[in-house]
Amino acid sequence: MSRRPNLFYAQSGGMTAVINATAAGVMHAAREERARIGRVYAGANGILGALREELFDLSAESAATIGALRQTPGGAFGSSRYALGTPDSHPENYARLIDVFRAHNIRWFLYNGGGGSAGTSLHVAEAAHRAGYELGVVHLPKTVDNDMAGTDFSPGFGSVAKYTAVSVQEAALDVASMCATSTQVFVMEVMGRHAGWIAAASALAQADGQPAPQIVLFPEVAFDERKFLARVQDVVARDGYCVVVTAEGLAVHNPAVTAPPTASEHGKDRLNVHTGRAAPFLADLVSRTLGLRCHFAVSDYLQRSARHVASALDVDMAWQVGVQGVALALAGEHRVMAGLVRTTRQRSLHWNIVPQPLARVAGREVTLPKKFIRRDGFGITPACRDYLLPLIQGEDYPDYRHGLPVAARPRLLRVPQKLPRWSAERL
Amino acid sequence: MSRRPNLFYAQSGGMTAVINATAAGVMHAAREERARIGRVYAGANGILGALREELFDLSAESAATIGALRQTPGGAFGSSRYALGTPDSHPENYARLIDVFRAHNIRWFLYNGGGGSAGTSLHVAEAAHRAGYELGVVHLPKTVDNDMAGTDFSPGFGSVAKYTAVSVQEAALDVASMCATSTQVFVMEVMGRHAGWIAAASALAQADGQPAPQIVLFPEVAFDERKFLARVQDVVARDGYCVVVTAEGLAVHNPAVTAPPTASEHGKDRLNVHTGRAAPFLADLVSRTLGLRCHFAVSDYLQRSARHVASALDVDMAWQVGVQGVALALAGEHRVMAGLVRTTRQRSLHWNIVPQPLARVAGREVTLPKKFIRRDGFGITPACRDYLLPLIQGEDYPDYRHGLPVAARPRLLRVPQKLPRWSAERL
Repeated sequence: MSRRPNLFYAQSGGMTAVINATAAGVMHAAREERARIGRVYAGANGILGALREELFDLSAESAATIGALRQTPGGAFGSSRYALGTPDSHPENYARLIDVFRAHNIRWFLYNGGGGSAGTSLHVAEAAHRAGYELGVVHLPKTVDNDMAGTDFSPGFGSVAKYTAVSVQEAALDVASMCATSTQVFVMEVMGRHAGWIAAASALAQADGQPAPQIVLFPEVAFDERKFLARVQDVVARDGYCVVVTAEGLAVHNPAVTAPPTASEHGKDRLNVHTGRAAPFLADLVSRTLGLRCHFAVSDYLQRSARHVASALDVDMAWQVGVQGVALALAGEHRVMAGLVRTTRQRSLHWNIVPQPLARVAGREVTLPKKFIRRDGFGITPACRDYLLPLIQGEDYPDYRHGLPVAARPRLLRVPQKLPRWSAERL
Repeated sequence: MSRRPNLFYAQSGGMTAVINATAAGVMHAAREERARIGRVYAGANGILGALREELFDLSAESAATIGALRQTPGGAFGSSRYALGTPDSHPENYARLIDVFRAHNIRWFLYNGGGGSAGTSLHVAEAAHRAGYELGVVHLPKTVDNDMAGTDFSPGFGSVAKYTAVSVQEAALDVASMCATSTQVFVMEVMGRHAGWIAAASALAQADGQPAPQIVLFPEVAFDERKFLARVQDVVARDGYCVVVTAEGLAVHNPAVTAPPTASEHGKDRLNVHTGRAAPFLADLVSRTLGLRCHFAVSDYLQRSARHVASALDVDMAWQVGVQGVALALAGEHRVMAGLVRTTRQRSLHWNIVPQPLARVAGREVTLPKKFIRRDGFGITPACRDYLLPLIQGEDYPDYRHGLPVAARPRLLRVPQKLPRWSAERL
């Protein structure tokens, strides 16, 4: 084993189409910095891999695998929603992390996750500090929800935005051609429990004078059933059909949606109670109240893993976050996130990666600002459009073999364990 | 107006990602045959346009529009589910059609639809014959369901098959990376009320040793709840996660799914009662019975309009069906469908377009043959894979502008009306 210090990388929380591009960027940059960085280790199943001392040696992967990872959705090393607690509430978890890091001479911690995971990054930094263990902590942003503080956009969002706008454009062409004798209202549910960024991106489909989606429902706006139904009726009278895009979070502020159509009381605890409920609720409401013919779609995981229609800009950002994250770590930056800061607001977006203090990022959630929501609550403003449009620019197609995208097949070489089995696991 | 006879083209039934490619093929071929074909007229909203004498003059469209149509999903001239009845039951409808055709010197009827619409083509031919009106009738196959007789595959199916296989592959990578601490079972509902072709195509995602989708449910197989749950449990124990793809038609032979979660009794009449019910039903069942964490997706119209991930072979077939349909019409073929006949079963598929007697096509529905369904009922056989795999080969990306696919914007020039308003309309 190399005596140069090693770097730990882990993926956290929900997946995106481009989180592996960030991993690929980390692997690529670390390879370029061989003189200073020993091995790159990934946690199997995210932070759980660190706790269980289940590490993959990414330095053993080929350059071809790095290239393939750049175009593979999902998380190649596994992710985790395991809750670590805080150094105060669960000191045993953090002690174990430091033990594992020490045993494997890990001196950099690159954690790839959203706002909640940024809190974990901060806790890990704090725990290392208390233990007197030297560890550089750099958080790498990631979330389809685009709701992180300290970054003007989150890697993962541009691709789900493009998927959503493209899908709505396509489905609207379908509904428009059928509405004379068939479906008049099409409802599509997208992710976003508290923040309506993905729903907002669907409005980009309105390019070239296309009217759809005529109604967008945001979690940030209280749902007004009467106003909504009146609008649907008006739109169908005007356009012949109506496409409604709703964030899953419609349910959050709307008790009427809470009766779960998909889960028993038991299942409710285990299911994500918000997902897949808004669209059927609205389709039923419209059908029952207005007597219009409805269809609905729930895109769920399809949207966040749709690498086949990724935004080229988003892929590039995700990759650069990985590359620059390594550079920040080597530069001695600590307790920071590799934030994406836009320098212009034009279509040909310019942006830089700027370290942001983690304390200003962790646990915060950025919802759609008021100035981005149209006054009637059913659409986006020109300012929102100007913000969103650059993020879906460019196509970055994966390679295909026999009709399907080529997914990376990393070797996932296990690092020999040195410590006793972790005994404190509570899953 | 030209004194050469004119050609009528109309789209019927549900849309596909490539039906406009067939329209483009018709327009292109008719242009090449200017010496023999006068104008190409399209029915606005399908056959309704013929009844209402609402015709578009497609000869007024530019070559650029023809190119753009080839890559635009939906139906550019509108489609219809209007039921004409038969010449015996509704002679007034057919008399009106012949009146309109006579008034506009229409001597060829090219109807682009599925098996039900092929019945309409046959009725139109019969009505023209009875009226002593010379009319060449050529049916152009189209359906995402791949359930037509007289053709080895239906234009539209290859693209929905590719969309489904790609989407399942992507979502499976997502679930696989999260299952240690999050979603363990992902259910995706695809189209197919009586025929499981689309569900079968999802199994193509199993390439390269990927296990998902581990369970595929076909309308052709009676749903056995106990067997299904046992299989889910086994798969999760083995792989850590389970991807289930179900045809919407699960409900058809399964009374347990009939309680509509999305529609009141009133709405039930108007909603497609089968769509969007199978996936939530299964997710709830698994969650409630096995206590596993579930997510589900309903792709609905997204799947059949996903031109952004179309199969190049499918686009080519759709185009050729249009081109050859015109050739068949000019060759005096009558009461036929332009059937696609495969000449080899290898990956590099060879196929021809062969006229098929409409009488052998109309109203028939081809479900998955037994030899294509695995003995346990949860997957496909190698023979099915050999049949399906060639159909998803090749990518045919639309042009993009500002991050979105460029949709055709045809001029849709209206043909001046010559007849009194149609009085028999019942919508």
